[in-house]
Amino acid sequence: MKRLLVDLKDRSYPVWVGAGVHAQAGRILSRLGFDSPPIVVSNAKVLRLHGEVLIAALQKTFGSPTLIRIGDGEQYKNQKTLAQIYEGLFRARADRHSWIVALGGGVVGDVAGYAAATFMRGIPYVGVPTTLLSQVDSSVGGKVAINVAHGKNLIGAFHQPAAVLSDTATLRTLPARELASGLYEVVKCGAIRSRRLLSYLESRLNAVLAVEPRETAHAILEAVRIKADVVARDERENNLRAILNFGHTVGHALEAASNYRRFKHGEAVAWGMIAAAELSVSLGKMKAEEARRFAQLIQRIEALPSLRGISAEGVWRALRHDKKSVGGTIRMVLLQSLGHAQLVTDLDPGHLRRFVTSFLNSAVMRQ
Amino acid sequence: MKRLLVDLKDRSYPVWVGAGVHAQAGRILSRLGFDSPPIVVSNAKVLRLHGEVLIAALQKTFGSPTLIRIGDGEQYKNQKTLAQIYEGLFRARADRHSWIVALGGGVVGDVAGYAAATFMRGIPYVGVPTTLLSQVDSSVGGKVAINVAHGKNLIGAFHQPAAVLSDTATLRTLPARELASGLYEVVKCGAIRSRRLLSYLESRLNAVLAVEPRETAHAILEAVRIKADVVARDERENNLRAILNFGHTVGHALEAASNYRRFKHGEAVAWGMIAAAELSVSLGKMKAEEARRFAQLIQRIEALPSLRGISAEGVWRALRHDKKSVGGTIRMVLLQSLGHAQLVTDLDPGHLRRFVTSFLNSAVMRQ
Repeated sequence: MKRLLVDLKDRSYPVWVGAGVHAQAGRILSRLGFDSPPIVVSNAKVLRLHGEVLIAALQKTFGSPTLIRIGDGEQYKNQKTLAQIYEGLFRARADRHSWIVALGGGVVGDVAGYAAATFMRGIPYVGVPTTLLSQVDSSVGGKVAINVAHGKNLIGAFHQPAAVLSDTATLRTLPARELASGLYEVVKCGAIRSRRLLSYLESRLNAVLAVEPRETAHAILEAVRIKADVVARDERENNLRAILNFGHTVGHALEAASNYRRFKHGEAVAWGMIAAAELSVSLGKMKAEEARRFAQLIQRIEALPSLRGISAEGVWRALRHDKKSVGGTIRMVLLQSLGHAQLVTDLDPGHLRRFVTSFLNSAVMRQ
Repeated sequence: MKRLLVDLKDRSYPVWVGAGVHAQAGRILSRLGFDSPPIVVSNAKVLRLHGEVLIAALQKTFGSPTLIRIGDGEQYKNQKTLAQIYEGLFRARADRHSWIVALGGGVVGDVAGYAAATFMRGIPYVGVPTTLLSQVDSSVGGKVAINVAHGKNLIGAFHQPAAVLSDTATLRTLPARELASGLYEVVKCGAIRSRRLLSYLESRLNAVLAVEPRETAHAILEAVRIKADVVARDERENNLRAILNFGHTVGHALEAASNYRRFKHGEAVAWGMIAAAELSVSLGKMKAEEARRFAQLIQRIEALPSLRGISAEGVWRALRHDKKSVGGTIRMVLLQSLGHAQLVTDLDPGHLRRFVTSFLNSAVMRQ
């Protein structure tokens, strides 16, 4: 079990990673000053799989927690679920000294975290992410939000957790595609800031895919360390934090061009990273050999859904409407080498458009 | 026209106070870096009374603002109005570079400020308060919120404005009771931190009640300076900021005991301040002469609604349920002298209960 501090001055918080973290929740959290029963937000499936140990640990130290059960799935990350959580908080007679434990994947973390950010102008919450993706991505960084009809994460806040508890044991029940989605995120962290992490994944990928505790915890910790370092330097996404969007520009466009049906988000980002690496090569920023090696690592994780039938025109249209585009030019994160990202703000639209066409063609050919 | 800086490090912002501030809005705000047309949130009545000059000034510098009209009154400070503002923002194709101007009293500032706090995880807003109460109170400090069925301001955030523009000319159209409500807040600031401000009010009260620009601007600026200083030292209400609740404990209880029908909030707080001063005397903390002088100043502002018929039992019940009470004891802000407040956390319930009875009796007798 290892601990890492996300350094945000008066909003710093520890991230605990390892096998058996849930059982230690009482000890870990009482040290942070919590001393009343928490309000646990989760869904039925997660509670069945992972609730017992955590809730017993919380109960032993703090007394019986209140449970608020929400729906399972991205479609529940909305205003209605938020209202349901508020209602549960009022019923539990929560006040500004209450605290929330968000047990589950990214949806639970985002909506429970947003409820915590806004209930009585902000109460503390502890993230207990149970998917690899949420352990390495959404649980760190303090971005909380809900979706609205106009798009994802459009209503939200920055609200740092009081602590994050990531138990690797929860990953053993994850479907392979879910595990892969999280791993792409680890790969992303390596690509933008740590060649060493990429090398580690290349050599220990099988152990990580088998969720061996040691290797899995190492991969999570390194990814969190990178993300935390970037967030600490740029909490509110002015510049540096933008490099965390590596792979997302083309990834979002692929999701949009396939009507959000073909890819999991992580899979679209995986394709987006391969594309961004190849685009970096085409612009003379990175060596071709690096991009090849990088694509190989990604494709060893899981077979990615094919790009067949996705029109270059559709991808291009989505790219131009990406919310990260400012004015006429397109902003995108590219690589100088594996481990070194660069935010490019003056990408030539003509070049990008031609690149999209040739990338889609060659990706379909190779598969 | 005077400018005061609320010092919150990277979230510092200027408060402009004076006659004619609205006409200068373009010049003031373009200096802060705004360069696109703002989204103005207001209500029909305020727009009719004060919209013209401000909107012309914004239009000249930034181009035509988008207008979002919300309902007028505390009953509109809710989830529905919030959703309406979000919808207006999406229709205006607002993005994270958009900015909001909240033109109106406390309701507009609170709900538009909360929309700004949460739209795309936070966009800037400029407060343009048009009532004395909002100029000296809610526009400064970054507390934004909406009401829910369970109570007032229970869903909210801390989101500092980018600037506050307080034009004293807007106060000329205020009904006398509204003006008085704001003045009680100025008196409160004097009571907790500035004997000098109280003396100023004692000698220039008639000019302030007549909304003479010079005297009014001075009273606003001094109150804002005190509030800003307290907030700067304690942004998230841990300790010092609690002294801003002077008068509120008994004030809230009086509102509750009269079913929120008899008093405006400021009037209840005015009675609460008189009570807190007398309680301070009864506990040997302050001289009786000071409390008398203080009550006189408050009662010169406007005739307060009578306390007749309000039961001591009802007030006492409300006091015990006040959200500022922690555990069994009651927290309350008292005075050591005029200009010096003290947060008392171990108030003896028995003493307070007897005090409430005698205060209500004697207040009714004196009127």
